[in-house]
Amino acid sequence: MASMSEKISACLADGGDMLLGDDATSRSAGVWRDDSVQATIIVRPRSTQEVSEVLRVCHEEGQSVVTHGGLTGLVNSADTTAADVVLSMERMNNIIDIDTLGRTMTVQAGVPLQQIHDVCAEHGLMFPVDLGARGSCQIGGNAATNAGGLRVIRYGMTRDNILGIEAVLADGTILSSLNQVLKNNAGYDLKQLFIGSEGTLGVVTQLVLRLRTELPAEHTALVGFSDYQRVLKFLSYFDGALAGNLSAFEVMWPDFFMHQRAKCEVKGLEIDGDARFFAIVESLGVDHSQEAETFGAALEGAMEEGLITDAVVAQSDNDRAAIWKIRDEVEHLFDGGEHMFFDVSLAIRSMNEYVDEVRANLAKQSFDSQFYSFGHLGDGNLHFCVVCKSDLAKYQPTIEECVYQPLEPLGGSISAEHGIGLQKKAYLSLTRSDAEIAVMRTLKHAMDPKGILNPGKIFDFEGPVSIQ
Amino acid sequence: MASMSEKISACLADGGDMLLGDDATSRSAGVWRDDSVQATIIVRPRSTQEVSEVLRVCHEEGQSVVTHGGLTGLVNSADTTAADVVLSMERMNNIIDIDTLGRTMTVQAGVPLQQIHDVCAEHGLMFPVDLGARGSCQIGGNAATNAGGLRVIRYGMTRDNILGIEAVLADGTILSSLNQVLKNNAGYDLKQLFIGSEGTLGVVTQLVLRLRTELPAEHTALVGFSDYQRVLKFLSYFDGALAGNLSAFEVMWPDFFMHQRAKCEVKGLEIDGDARFFAIVESLGVDHSQEAETFGAALEGAMEEGLITDAVVAQSDNDRAAIWKIRDEVEHLFDGGEHMFFDVSLAIRSMNEYVDEVRANLAKQSFDSQFYSFGHLGDGNLHFCVVCKSDLAKYQPTIEECVYQPLEPLGGSISAEHGIGLQKKAYLSLTRSDAEIAVMRTLKHAMDPKGILNPGKIFDFEGPVSIQ
Repeated sequence: MASMSEKISACLADGGDMLLGDDATSRSAGVWRDDSVQATIIVRPRSTQEVSEVLRVCHEEGQSVVTHGGLTGLVNSADTTAADVVLSMERMNNIIDIDTLGRTMTVQAGVPLQQIHDVCAEHGLMFPVDLGARGSCQIGGNAATNAGGLRVIRYGMTRDNILGIEAVLADGTILSSLNQVLKNNAGYDLKQLFIGSEGTLGVVTQLVLRLRTELPAEHTALVGFSDYQRVLKFLSYFDGALAGNLSAFEVMWPDFFMHQRAKCEVKGLEIDGDARFFAIVESLGVDHSQEAETFGAALEGAMEEGLITDAVVAQSDNDRAAIWKIRDEVEHLFDGGEHMFFDVSLAIRSMNEYVDEVRANLAKQSFDSQFYSFGHLGDGNLHFCVVCKSDLAKYQPTIEECVYQPLEPLGGSISAEHGIGLQKKAYLSLTRSDAEIAVMRTLKHAMDPKGILNPGKIFDFEGPVSIQ
Repeated sequence: MASMSEKISACLADGGDMLLGDDATSRSAGVWRDDSVQATIIVRPRSTQEVSEVLRVCHEEGQSVVTHGGLTGLVNSADTTAADVVLSMERMNNIIDIDTLGRTMTVQAGVPLQQIHDVCAEHGLMFPVDLGARGSCQIGGNAATNAGGLRVIRYGMTRDNILGIEAVLADGTILSSLNQVLKNNAGYDLKQLFIGSEGTLGVVTQLVLRLRTELPAEHTALVGFSDYQRVLKFLSYFDGALAGNLSAFEVMWPDFFMHQRAKCEVKGLEIDGDARFFAIVESLGVDHSQEAETFGAALEGAMEEGLITDAVVAQSDNDRAAIWKIRDEVEHLFDGGEHMFFDVSLAIRSMNEYVDEVRANLAKQSFDSQFYSFGHLGDGNLHFCVVCKSDLAKYQPTIEECVYQPLEPLGGSISAEHGIGLQKKAYLSLTRSDAEIAVMRTLKHAMDPKGILNPGKIFDFEGPVSIQ
């Protein structure tokens, strides 16, 4: 009888492009990870047709399939077992079409995000989705995880920047919805199924992206506040004052800011030391001098109204880099020991109360921990870093309880932008009701009745293989 | 044995609020229609719990249910037969919560869109979804049909402005996903199922809306072009020049513009008579004088670069009203006889070629017809009005063929914003592949296996009742 690898190879052109055995298991499990892929078969299809053929065979055989993009995920959503087949999209990395007037780009799923940005820049265009992993992550993975990133407040998540998707269903059916227009109300919007479902409902093979005209003029400031209520009032005020040009609103609690300012080597950032909250605000526009005036006037207005205690406006690219360094060089937080990183969301009116509760929960524990909070507040997205001197693995479940439990009564989410994968699966029911999880299972059953696609991720589902 | 109305009444508080027999059938079938509701039972639930109880009973009995909002739809998506039960959302019209700092509003599905705008205005906020039917349409219907409207180019469709939805499933299960944050990647985004599915997958009962800070400063101009290619280049240029403040880009072909200018009583709109295309452009911002400068300078730049042949900038509210009058008073088109109205979308680079083809198709027919084209070009959305002196009903299928057939090779959609309902059902396969329609049926089967929800709309599905 033919082995699984032979069956897969037989349905690819010229035997296909596959890594087997040690060639597969010597690959890293992820960009920021020390462990390796467990699967012993990695298929690298070169076309949608090949993806379709592979899935058709896997479906017939009840063979589990895990799709791999750039492997920059943070919740173990692309983890494999020895029994899985990996479908790596790395060979499907062609840009099919760019329509500079309609401002759309059609790409294969394996194109790295950075390449999309580069091609856009050549045409005076931009694709607003941007994140730290841009050099490694692939657009198919950005869609499958509904990536967030740095400009969500203005341009939304990946979901909001995708017009069309071609996906292959579990049984190999090619579902082509490569819509190129903003508006298409002809029946159900099927692409939504594949965005943010972490590869459990289909394999994304091509996408139509919505592009924008490039906005080259950036203005950045670091702002201080006396209390949390003023942070919220200022967000609403400033967003209005910039008439929608606000493209970042990153808030730092004092624990985070003081630690970072001490550790990062930045000069010229003399901001009011008595401020209790800090924010990096940024506008993105086109007319540098006129917008500088608007930006400065809006900050002055905020000072006069007592919304902010101080503001340092970047006068140069160096200044801008220094301001962002405080926010971005999160590795300084890890100096004190082992760390855990969290990504939650909740209504911003409840956010400070929530931060206080998590801090109090952690303080009650028997172990010492440091706690740093910051985030894309404009999006309702909070990040925490919890650092323990030692034995983090031992305390991990307790720390997770401290962070996730208070979200439930506040209607918050255990995952703002990172997804669920395996890492947050145990906590899904804090954020989603039994009815919601039941409907997710209903959709999974309808789209992938044998459960071969990325089994065990997000929630458990009866299928041939399930990672617990 | 209890009748259907008795069974429904029995599960409502105090016998519930129902219209039976003539009280039901004397109701209009729609705001712009002459015919009446055919259903003899109209239930007006006062809570999500009542919706749930009604659906539980209907599901048990295999009773078809058609949800009614403001009945402003244009594709017969809320049509009933004598065998249907209507679930009218008119009593569920409460605003539950407005969070002025988080800029969200939680509402019941039956709240009219106009009321949402009014409440927003009291707080210096806005809900960007806006359309002509604002006084009659309800927010639940806007969601169920994914309404488009006047500001899609900047703010997207209704889908893009909804954060959370509570819906009741066919069997009465209450699915509450009243998310209040921009970012929530905790499993599948279930609200997407109910947006744009025209009431076939569930009944929307509550929504969380994303609000924006109000932008009071409007600038409007009427612009002329020598050819279509320049319209496209100007769109990209102008959107960039306004740094994202562009909130309307309405293009009028000469057939439409010349007819309307002759019919509408507008003064002071002296625009280049040799122009071949016309557009209304609008920016929405906050600093009136500064933005006037940007707006004027961008138009001057376009003149210098030869992108436009002329521009008339509105200097007053009267000017603005005159400009919009030409676009909005479409009733003048109907002077010549009976009319049909179309709503399609396609890539803007193909749009003029498509218009020419439809015009040529119609010219080949044996009957005389007038043809007017215009639309939300910035969104890839084109409207046509075809006017026949007489016998429109006879020619309707031919006219539909002339308009819809050329869309297929261009990858266009037979419905940009109006939906499918009954009216466009026969043409769905021009826009959606067999695989896509099969997946729509799969979802319908998974969510509503008995097919009781709005049967026969969008596509046929085996259920107890099917409108053909």
